[in-house]
Amino acid sequence: MTNRASPLPNWAQKSAQKRDSLKAKINPAWLLDLSPTVDLSESSTVSAMDVLQQYGRQVLSKQEWELTEEHDATGMLQLLAERKVSAVEVTTAFCKRAAIANQLVNCLTEVMFDEAVERAKELDEHFERTGKPLGRLHGLPISLKDSFNVKGVQSAIGYVSFLDHEPPTSNAALVDILLAEGAVVYCKTNVPVTLMMADSVNNVTGRTLNPNKLSLTAGGSTGGEGALVKLRGSLLGAGTDIAGSARIPALCNGIYGFRPTTLRVPFVGLTAPGRVGSPSPILPVIGPEGHSVRDLELFMRTVADSEPWKVDHTCVTVPWRTVAPPTRPLRFGYLKEDPSRPLHPTALRGMTSAARKLEDTGHAIVELDGRVPSLWETSRLAWKFFETDPQHVPAQHLRASGEPLVPALETTTLPELQGWEPSVDELFEMNLQRQALVGAWHDIVVAERLDAIILPTYQSTAVRHDTYGFMIYTVLANMLDVRSS
Amino acid sequence: MTNRASPLPNWAQKSAQKRDSLKAKINPAWLLDLSPTVDLSESSTVSAMDVLQQYGRQVLSKQEWELTEEHDATGMLQLLAERKVSAVEVTTAFCKRAAIANQLVNCLTEVMFDEAVERAKELDEHFERTGKPLGRLHGLPISLKDSFNVKGVQSAIGYVSFLDHEPPTSNAALVDILLAEGAVVYCKTNVPVTLMMADSVNNVTGRTLNPNKLSLTAGGSTGGEGALVKLRGSLLGAGTDIAGSARIPALCNGIYGFRPTTLRVPFVGLTAPGRVGSPSPILPVIGPEGHSVRDLELFMRTVADSEPWKVDHTCVTVPWRTVAPPTRPLRFGYLKEDPSRPLHPTALRGMTSAARKLEDTGHAIVELDGRVPSLWETSRLAWKFFETDPQHVPAQHLRASGEPLVPALETTTLPELQGWEPSVDELFEMNLQRQALVGAWHDIVVAERLDAIILPTYQSTAVRHDTYGFMIYTVLANMLDVRSS
Repeated sequence: MTNRASPLPNWAQKSAQKRDSLKAKINPAWLLDLSPTVDLSESSTVSAMDVLQQYGRQVLSKQEWELTEEHDATGMLQLLAERKVSAVEVTTAFCKRAAIANQLVNCLTEVMFDEAVERAKELDEHFERTGKPLGRLHGLPISLKDSFNVKGVQSAIGYVSFLDHEPPTSNAALVDILLAEGAVVYCKTNVPVTLMMADSVNNVTGRTLNPNKLSLTAGGSTGGEGALVKLRGSLLGAGTDIAGSARIPALCNGIYGFRPTTLRVPFVGLTAPGRVGSPSPILPVIGPEGHSVRDLELFMRTVADSEPWKVDHTCVTVPWRTVAPPTRPLRFGYLKEDPSRPLHPTALRGMTSAARKLEDTGHAIVELDGRVPSLWETSRLAWKFFETDPQHVPAQHLRASGEPLVPALETTTLPELQGWEPSVDELFEMNLQRQALVGAWHDIVVAERLDAIILPTYQSTAVRHDTYGFMIYTVLANMLDVRSS
Repeated sequence: MTNRASPLPNWAQKSAQKRDSLKAKINPAWLLDLSPTVDLSESSTVSAMDVLQQYGRQVLSKQEWELTEEHDATGMLQLLAERKVSAVEVTTAFCKRAAIANQLVNCLTEVMFDEAVERAKELDEHFERTGKPLGRLHGLPISLKDSFNVKGVQSAIGYVSFLDHEPPTSNAALVDILLAEGAVVYCKTNVPVTLMMADSVNNVTGRTLNPNKLSLTAGGSTGGEGALVKLRGSLLGAGTDIAGSARIPALCNGIYGFRPTTLRVPFVGLTAPGRVGSPSPILPVIGPEGHSVRDLELFMRTVADSEPWKVDHTCVTVPWRTVAPPTRPLRFGYLKEDPSRPLHPTALRGMTSAARKLEDTGHAIVELDGRVPSLWETSRLAWKFFETDPQHVPAQHLRASGEPLVPALETTTLPELQGWEPSVDELFEMNLQRQALVGAWHDIVVAERLDAIILPTYQSTAVRHDTYGFMIYTVLANMLDVRSS
């Protein structure tokens, strides 16, 4: 018998190495010197926003504080274009603030701070030499969900087994588009393992906490991104969404998130959490996270104008169209709640006050409650599509390292689908069910001449870790995938 | 023992009734009185074009002959808009000419001549009353492939068992769009049973013959349409295409046919030959048959401008875009032939002379032979998608009546897929194979900056009945489904 502690299991050693390597890439001078009384544990009720306010200037200069605090991406790009600030200044400020955010809520998976500052230098030199910015995103640091491949940088997306993969040898198509427009890539952000949960937790980099209150979830699967943006460690980030992953973190953290129609933002070059080639009609889609609606539009317009169909054969050849502001009152479909997930008072107040404000400004609210297909049944069908894989590839990725299952994995499976296996025959039935759902919504939209639909993102605001559960409100958009252009 | 001939089997009685009922709807005065020496059998080498030239004026007045002979749809619409001719005159002329065409090549499945003339009267009255045409297609008779549902009219699409179905209670979405623009619907046209062959033959209405030479195929599956248009019994017709069905009849008969990108022309309200809800990514699409390229554009523009996404939830919300004529030489990919189906001399001459003419007018020809994935393998994959149905619904439709299989069904199956049954696992593999094909073509198009690709429709001109076989050249477009807008 020996007194030595038993060595860490192999998977845990790999994780520890990864975390150490991440830590080693962050300049220690960019970390806050916090009072020992500041509890940054996942059960803490501390607000990282408050901690940042109180301690942030230990690391950030006055200019860096103001630069990171006071602008959205569009505003920052204007400062950069007018050369009121250099790309190096902006990049350095956001690298530092991202380092702080990571210290507070554990939101980063990869840092490329040194490369980012080098890139920013080149951009400044380009501007100096040519008198013009490189592109529409000249000098803007953009953060990326861990799924986005960046040449030479790992894309573990929370699987310990993926730490054994060689880093990608090329960038995701979107990354190349952003770089061509002058953006600076400086970090990647945390995700839930499998990407199919609303808690960004995994055995590689651990759990991202909610900046508003650490004991709450930061949402997922673009949760690291949501927390980083909320703490203004980023002005604009790229996420993905197959059931709400770009919108749930927006709700949980209190930022702006957008899920566009599929096949418009190039998806090639992302590391997939599951099996590719699925016959499911529900496709993942890339969407931005940011601080203003105009920033989300900036992201979408920049991508569409880049002719993404030239780099991704799945993209539709549909140019960006500028639509004139409406000159008539709009008609909003209003789905207040689904009976299977009644709203908490805070969420209900959000819904009713939004409707009231629209009515007060002359727009029409068309009540949809009771007139649309059950969101619960819709979600159930969506999950059947998501689980249509006889080889259960995500489970294989988990088993490959021997890592244990994180508890949140239990919260977003559907007990009634335990043991369910798809058949080709059932795929036909599922497709017909989906068509019926899409048709039912389509008919209401046409009959009521709806311009848009308002519905909850979730039944409440951010919840405690590992309790978010099934996301019936957000997955509706993925199921319908309305093809407005 | 009795001398009486054994009665017809039940299925044959139903077919005979259907044919009699069709015959009874055609005014006998609209039939040609042909010399007994004119052989209209399917082994005859007679040209129906010649017969029509020789005998047509027995039925058609001088004005009717000229009206049906001298214009394309765009030209006819101009005459109608200028009131140089009435909708009744035009409709009557085309009803008569369609009746003759049917007598010669057996191209019709349904006639609505009386209803059409009534409709034309209403259109003339509308014009008289309002001083304006009803829409862009005011007074134009448009023929429809049998698949298009017309309220109260059968959609047997060649299945004897479908003769027992109640007629549809509503129009296909496209039919409503055409009617809203002032078109006149006056007949439906013959198809191959199952719609998956290039010979328009079935046990309901029999076989459509090629107007140029009766012993040759009229193509399929929009073959009745192709023959009717060729004989100028129609100026513009609507077909469908999942492997070449809108283009093969254009080749075989010598007219213009177009297969657009999927999800732009509303497909709801067509009678399906097989099982709906397929997980196959290869979707059927509606395309026009006509006498000029400008007529095909007229069809597409009219449909796109009708906001078809309001009537069909599967349509993309992509408005028609007018593209300025190019001011630079164009770059044409040129796939002369696939080694698995070498071109006959006539087809080869067509390809080389097209390429030469383009080069002579300053455009670039980029040879693709040997640089693209095998069309044979591409077709094989397409057929796996087409046969992805564990219930084999087309076979059920055939068995339901006891009708015998038409011989052509043997020619477009792939022996190596006999007994093949899809699995969900294989669907993943098939989707990956398809993505690889689409990606390979995409990369060539981008790298060579191709504006368009020219390739054969088939290895020869029209062939003898029941010998067309596998359509490797046309199915490529369905597999790739290039999403230009």
